[in-house]
Amino acid sequence: MSALNEGWFTEIFQNEGTAFSLQVKRKLHEEQTPFQKLEIYETETFGNLMVLDGCVMLTSRDNFLYHEMMTHPALFTHKDPKKVVIIGGGDCGTLKEVLKHPGVEEAWQVEIDERVTKMSEKYFPELCESNEDPRANFFFGDGIQWIRDVAPGSLDLIIIDSTDPVGPAEGLFALDFYRDALLALKDGGLIVQQSESPMLHTDSIIKSIHMDLRKAGFDHVQTLPFPQPVYPTGWWSCTMAGKDKPVKYFREEDADNRPFVTRYYNAGIHRGALAMPQFMAEALGDPVQPGEG
Amino acid sequence: MSALNEGWFTEIFQNEGTAFSLQVKRKLHEEQTPFQKLEIYETETFGNLMVLDGCVMLTSRDNFLYHEMMTHPALFTHKDPKKVVIIGGGDCGTLKEVLKHPGVEEAWQVEIDERVTKMSEKYFPELCESNEDPRANFFFGDGIQWIRDVAPGSLDLIIIDSTDPVGPAEGLFALDFYRDALLALKDGGLIVQQSESPMLHTDSIIKSIHMDLRKAGFDHVQTLPFPQPVYPTGWWSCTMAGKDKPVKYFREEDADNRPFVTRYYNAGIHRGALAMPQFMAEALGDPVQPGEG
Repeated sequence: MSALNEGWFTEIFQNEGTAFSLQVKRKLHEEQTPFQKLEIYETETFGNLMVLDGCVMLTSRDNFLYHEMMTHPALFTHKDPKKVVIIGGGDCGTLKEVLKHPGVEEAWQVEIDERVTKMSEKYFPELCESNEDPRANFFFGDGIQWIRDVAPGSLDLIIIDSTDPVGPAEGLFALDFYRDALLALKDGGLIVQQSESPMLHTDSIIKSIHMDLRKAGFDHVQTLPFPQPVYPTGWWSCTMAGKDKPVKYFREEDADNRPFVTRYYNAGIHRGALAMPQFMAEALGDPVQPGEG
Repeated sequence: MSALNEGWFTEIFQNEGTAFSLQVKRKLHEEQTPFQKLEIYETETFGNLMVLDGCVMLTSRDNFLYHEMMTHPALFTHKDPKKVVIIGGGDCGTLKEVLKHPGVEEAWQVEIDERVTKMSEKYFPELCESNEDPRANFFFGDGIQWIRDVAPGSLDLIIIDSTDPVGPAEGLFALDFYRDALLALKDGGLIVQQSESPMLHTDSIIKSIHMDLRKAGFDHVQTLPFPQPVYPTGWWSCTMAGKDKPVKYFREEDADNRPFVTRYYNAGIHRGALAMPQFMAEALGDPVQPGEG
């Protein structure tokens, strides 16, 4: 039985009986914000690491997988997204990907904890490159209330880039919130939410998200799996839902000809992510085939 | 900095600066075979765990991802695979998946360490269900020599289900071995090899495999990524190559109508795995799009 000596950050997933560790050079920052304990480490091989309440949020090295998959599939599924809101996403990585789309006219980042954004500006400056973009808007406060207050039918895309559905983010995985989100969307609008691990959460969280989104009035729901090494099982997902249009089809030609750089996303990856692993297709009751693709 | 107490098995990936741990109930077995140290644990949440020389080989819970992806894409890419050889694969999980294909007439498992198979029969009986199949043949010895000795042009599919390319398996990731494999294959034949982590090894091992396979005379080479939680980064791959035919196309209708149960694999997943993440497409010089799919 090997033991990890000093010099490692370890996150233990007690319920899952697994743990993941990164070798660290030093702790760069630690504070108790009004909402959570925020730590930043410099790791040996994954760049900088942000930890909230003991949970790995992101590293410099592999966050591109998550941020690209939380944004580009939804933005290329919507016909012409102009107004986009990110609930959470305080590290600004999602905002940066959204603003790569020239058609986006207005993007909001609604994050409850301003300290996350401040520390991301300091320790993950590459994720904050677009914070000065004139289309970027920041609101630090409650995302649930923000969605409730926004003008009905005013948004094209809502991206829920939150922590796990316990604690502060719990209300973002809830029927009432999805109902408010549906009202806030224009016709043709979409919602996309980080939806945990296909391996661990298909029969629990992912299934609940599907049921609640349908109950709230979203007719079209689709989970897209993708790799994310620093999260439990190294396998993660987002779940996308359309107010009134299928989310299995996307602007493939635009995705092929995207006028910006990506490291994971491309049209083939998007099509691939629409294919459900057999056990997920069976658990979620979705057809196996993602269309003609 | 949390530390893991007793009651955990931890694999430290020193070069990668990461570690992965599984909570264990007890050690079921430990021996030094003529080739390696073999341990079996009962874990809290992942069923039984096999460890060779300190490296996680498989768990009861998630091995289906690896075994299905090492077999079904290749078997549905070949037009009509009848004679299949597995080099390595001592746990018999690959053999079991191969024998699900009714068209396979003869399957060989060529494993150097008979103790791995014996302990798999005891602790992973579900993987050894097909060991009594009259089409199943076992040879315990050197896979490199076996491929060198087999009649030229006698095999439809060679599956290299080995440990990492250090130590005993190093010769299986080598130009000479690929040349012998090409000779051993019939026209229309295929080779498929486990090829490590897309995140960690694209620019090293995966790129070398592509180059060596092409040098050996395989014109068509394709890496298929898939999730595998207990391996480093939780993201793994196999690399498939065709003797004389592209490997980007497969018998989609047969895959859709497969007469057996899978948990991960289906035709959509196969198509999806043919799509290269953008950074891999760029590193490997492959076209991004997997065809018309």
